[in-house]
Amino acid sequence: MNTSNVSIVIHAARDLRVEESGEISKIGSGQVLIEIQSGGICGSDLHYYNHGGFGPIQLREPMILGHEVSGKIVSTASDVSALSVGQLVAVSPSRPCQSCEYCLKGQQNHCLNMQFYGSAMPFPHIQGAFQKHLVAEAAQCVPADGLSSGQAAMAEPLAVCLHALKRAGDVMAKNVLITGCGPIGCLSILAARRAGAGQIIATDLSDFALEKARECGADLTFNTKETPYALARFQRDKGQIDVHLECSGAAGALAAGVACLKPKGTLVQLGLGGDMSVPMQAMTAKEITLRGSFRFHEEFASAVRMMQSGLIKVDALLTHRFDATDAQRAFETANDRSQAMKVQLAF
Amino acid sequence: MNTSNVSIVIHAARDLRVEESGEISKIGSGQVLIEIQSGGICGSDLHYYNHGGFGPIQLREPMILGHEVSGKIVSTASDVSALSVGQLVAVSPSRPCQSCEYCLKGQQNHCLNMQFYGSAMPFPHIQGAFQKHLVAEAAQCVPADGLSSGQAAMAEPLAVCLHALKRAGDVMAKNVLITGCGPIGCLSILAARRAGAGQIIATDLSDFALEKARECGADLTFNTKETPYALARFQRDKGQIDVHLECSGAAGALAAGVACLKPKGTLVQLGLGGDMSVPMQAMTAKEITLRGSFRFHEEFASAVRMMQSGLIKVDALLTHRFDATDAQRAFETANDRSQAMKVQLAF
Amino acid sequence: MNTSNVSIVIHAARDLRVEESGEISKIGSGQVLIEIQSGGICGSDLHYYNHGGFGPIQLREPMILGHEVSGKIVSTASDVSALSVGQLVAVSPSRPCQSCEYCLKGQQNHCLNMQFYGSAMPFPHIQGAFQKHLVAEAAQCVPADGLSSGQAAMAEPLAVCLHALKRAGDVMAKNVLITGCGPIGCLSILAARRAGAGQIIATDLSDFALEKARECGADLTFNTKETPYALARFQRDKGQIDVHLECSGAAGALAAGVACLKPKGTLVQLGLGGDMSVPMQAMTAKEITLRGSFRFHEEFASAVRMMQSGLIKVDALLTHRFDATDAQRAFETANDRSQAMKVQLAF
Amino acid sequence: MNTSNVSIVIHAARDLRVEESGEISKIGSGQVLIEIQSGGICGSDLHYYNHGGFGPIQLREPMILGHEVSGKIVSTASDVSALSVGQLVAVSPSRPCQSCEYCLKGQQNHCLNMQFYGSAMPFPHIQGAFQKHLVAEAAQCVPADGLSSGQAAMAEPLAVCLHALKRAGDVMAKNVLITGCGPIGCLSILAARRAGAGQIIATDLSDFALEKARECGADLTFNTKETPYALARFQRDKGQIDVHLECSGAAGALAAGVACLKPKGTLVQLGLGGDMSVPMQAMTAKEITLRGSFRFHEEFASAVRMMQSGLIKVDALLTHRFDATDAQRAFETANDRSQAMKVQLAF
Repeated sequence: MNTSNVSIVIHAARDLRVEESGEISKIGSGQVLIEIQSGGICGSDLHYYNHGGFGPIQLREPMILGHEVSGKIVSTASDVSALSVGQLVAVSPSRPCQSCEYCLKGQQNHCLNMQFYGSAMPFPHIQGAFQKHLVAEAAQCVPADGLSSGQAAMAEPLAVCLHALKRAGDVMAKNVLITGCGPIGCLSILAARRAGAGQIIATDLSDFALEKARECGADLTFNTKETPYALARFQRDKGQIDVHLECSGAAGALAAGVACLKPKGTLVQLGLGGDMSVPMQAMTAKEITLRGSFRFHEEFASAVRMMQSGLIKVDALLTHRFDATDAQRAFETANDRSQAMKVQLAF
Repeated sequence: MNTSNVSIVIHAARDLRVEESGEISKIGSGQVLIEIQSGGICGSDLHYYNHGGFGPIQLREPMILGHEVSGKIVSTASDVSALSVGQLVAVSPSRPCQSCEYCLKGQQNHCLNMQFYGSAMPFPHIQGAFQKHLVAEAAQCVPADGLSSGQAAMAEPLAVCLHALKRAGDVMAKNVLITGCGPIGCLSILAARRAGAGQIIATDLSDFALEKARECGADLTFNTKETPYALARFQRDKGQIDVHLECSGAAGALAAGVACLKPKGTLVQLGLGGDMSVPMQAMTAKEITLRGSFRFHEEFASAVRMMQSGLIKVDALLTHRFDATDAQRAFETANDRSQAMKVQLAF
Repeated sequence: MNTSNVSIVIHAARDLRVEESGEISKIGSGQVLIEIQSGGICGSDLHYYNHGGFGPIQLREPMILGHEVSGKIVSTASDVSALSVGQLVAVSPSRPCQSCEYCLKGQQNHCLNMQFYGSAMPFPHIQGAFQKHLVAEAAQCVPADGLSSGQAAMAEPLAVCLHALKRAGDVMAKNVLITGCGPIGCLSILAARRAGAGQIIATDLSDFALEKARECGADLTFNTKETPYALARFQRDKGQIDVHLECSGAAGALAAGVACLKPKGTLVQLGLGGDMSVPMQAMTAKEITLRGSFRFHEEFASAVRMMQSGLIKVDALLTHRFDATDAQRAFETANDRSQAMKVQLAF
Repeated sequence: MNTSNVSIVIHAARDLRVEESGEISKIGSGQVLIEIQSGGICGSDLHYYNHGGFGPIQLREPMILGHEVSGKIVSTASDVSALSVGQLVAVSPSRPCQSCEYCLKGQQNHCLNMQFYGSAMPFPHIQGAFQKHLVAEAAQCVPADGLSSGQAAMAEPLAVCLHALKRAGDVMAKNVLITGCGPIGCLSILAARRAGAGQIIATDLSDFALEKARECGADLTFNTKETPYALARFQRDKGQIDVHLECSGAAGALAAGVACLKPKGTLVQLGLGGDMSVPMQAMTAKEITLRGSFRFHEEFASAVRMMQSGLIKVDALLTHRFDATDAQRAFETANDRSQAMKVQLAF
């Protein structure tokens, strides 16, 4: 085993560095050492890269990025029996305390002491998982036998979308609108289709994203930059859409969805776009249910299993792969929505 | 029976007239003639009086106001057997078609052909119920034996609040925040207490309203004009409030509630305050469920029954009563939140 | 058009007759005349054929059987515009009154005045749809363009299963047990898979049925006649099954499922097997939710659409097809669970 | 402080002993020593006393009984700051591990390693709380300032009923049937009334129990021994009852409730009466939801708070109080349903 480590560290907006260090942490009780194989770049990673943070959350010290990773087990603590050396695992970035009020209600995504990889929300920041050698808790690792490391690294964003579908409630045979077709929007399409959605309508401003949306199973797609009134047809009789998964974080997309939702329809907000103005009069009069959806918990293992069984196939979204040493180019590519969907780093 | 009719008609903002007409409509099959005894002035009546409408809904022709009424049966069609002459009834202003897509889903409050009393939303406008003699469908009338006519006329706003509590879900032993303590806020306090709420916290800008809130059962009340940070104590550990019933329609009240809600908490929006900016970042990250609540259906009969059994007592809210001929003074009084809660007209 | 009609009439147990009559009913307002093309034999049809009824429901006069039918529109009343002559339609056997208390709550399957085809529950019995020429309400007909008539006639049992899945709640990535793999069990497998079930375990006493279950997507199948303890592996840690769809009506199958269900698991009872003894102690201590599921309403149109879009494929279940004049042989074949799944009549 | 301990120990059916021991356990980290003041006798205590167990759960060694207790803090470990010496506390008998799969889903009542006081289900048995001096975890203790020790000891059975009401879902303004009016039935009446039930109908075989039911707020009571068909009036139009809380464990009571429940009604089974035959045909056709309800978790603290605020008043149920040394007479009294409701021991 190579004894040096390589990490992808953000220092400030546009200041991304590949850093090498001579030392790898020792594994303690319940832990494993993983050689990371794939790491996907997420929208929040891009926010740190482009802007140094988002809204009130800003970098105050260098931070290793990354929270969508998979790799092979290199060694395990003596008390870890469920994982074996050489096994591919998807590594959950979610590390709840399992003892606070919310963990003991089964709401680990709201843990009061959450240590989520690559987050500048607390200080000191929580270091991320874009590291060649990562020491993790065995409990974070889900065996991913049968998957490629690239697929396994999709478990995290897929888990976000499986959680959002749970928040949405029943979609069987229903009309589902998805606004914003980046990786989260496209994975939501896959999840909605798997959950039985009848007709899936997707919108975005990028033709490339909409092409991917169709590959994921969207039945109708609209470029709302080119045809801003395309959704008007779904406003008939107070609305024709049962469920709206809002993945863009754009106030306009939310408002367009509200106009199309049936009375008592459900709008799940996944996109983190900051505070916004909403058509509250219509939401009240139509008795819309708006639900925030944030991260995931048990859905991480579900995501791995659903890919292993072939029930959800994410391959169409894996558009680019770069060597970790080429991280900057990878991030620039991920920024280009006209050609990139999910960009992954190979370690 | 007096053969002339008296109606309270709004012609434009501040132009309210008591009009007499020589003719009373004949009753047809399934109908009854009612001599109205009490009519409560609602916030939407005040909007027409003060501003000639609200937002996009504006008066385009004279309209009889009123949708909170009760009265005595004067005569019944020959095919009406459930009601008897002389009986006090609460009259539901909600007249769904019972045959559209939404009615046949049990969502009559979203009827595509709703004829709700005193609404300028459709044109011609739907005339209201502030009439000395009202012809109504027997199906709109709920026997109110044992109640005063003033109590019976509270069935409508109470039904709004019972519906909102249903939208809120379980409140048993929970912390419930109510923002805005006008009649709808105070009736929501009564309904929440009846539904088992543990601790009820109420806010308003008027000390008089808060005094009424306490009479209705609020455990803690705060004047947020005088102590704008009073709710900060409920923000601990991501939030201490389980359910927020927002009855003010003010963006600031909604935002204050979001900051106090526990993760996965529920915010029911009853107040119609137009479109507004909301703290969507926090709503998403805390996975708040925001539900619009609009009018009612089966809750109208429930409201009457809950008052009849003494399980909900509304008397503290009946602060003023004017003769219908004195309607203008009644509306001016209703405008004064420093002394009036529910103002009713006697016909 | 042929002016004579052919019907399949049950007179008593084992007394099934193909009857010809010279007259076809005239169509009235809102109605259509349909030339039936396919009619599937259901378990309740077999009950009438084998036993003259079930439990307290017994034949008291001759009754036309059948409620799973499709056909082509022959003519339409002048006020019917949504259907055209020659169009294939699936015909819903469910005829709720749309005006009783339950219809107006959106619970049409509990209509107080239901006229469901081919039912001996009321007297006079409700005549069924195994008729060459059937006059029906346009509202019962769902256009089935793109389907074969055999597929279209599966809309009814598929609707039963879509309704059961709705009763089951969320199944995404979960372990689903299905006991009894006749047509309803197999269609439930298709529906559960479509709704996102993670692992589907199916049991039956017939190897043929289990083979069909696997064709429908069951991951694991067990012949509980041969291996009565096969499900014991799912009892670990209080249970491993999230949702149990009980399609056999057998007390033993229900009890086996209860032993395998996780605490707070859901058991949906579809099978109509009469009253039975249940392991109530375990159901209480594990807080199992048992939900009855009965027929369907809006799921009928959903079933047609899900087949049209290819999201649910029922072809593997269409094992036999007989000419209507050969009805007796068709019923005998349907009785043989070692070789028959869905047996249909061609008119 | 007295240094000897007194315990109420069951050795076999009808062999109940008051035992004294010279030693009291030392308190460890996080623990407190409590001088028990009140201990209520529960139905399961009576089962051990009368029969040595119930069903498969049988005494295999002597066991201290009791799980409804309250007392005063005598001393606290140095790391316990939330409780003070002399404070009255209600002591929860529920001791989940807080680390198994079910605890981490917020389903502590299904903990795989539960140590519930006074249970012969595991071996060695879990010793109960009928002890003069009890060492408990601080986390089990809920401050009960303002309550009598007798009221505080009612927190446990009240928590059972608050949990059952949560399982029942919305009861606001609804018709609620409660069968079996022992302490659990009567506390369910109190809880249902608090939760907004419209009309409460209660049945039992004992006039004394029904008198208590009325004191707790039941609107209609029926002695089903004397008038076995009393509930028939609620069967009209498929049923008139919305929610049935079955507290008797009797198959006949469950069946009577099913016949009276509206389609889609809810039946919550609290009573532990062993396996039983149920009217499954009607439950399926009416789409009844039957939910088991077992113990409680967060409802224990809620129960204390609801009594402290006066929102639930249990005093009418505290019919008898005996000195602990007179335990046998207390158990015999508790056996007599014609005069006893809740019998408590004073230590």
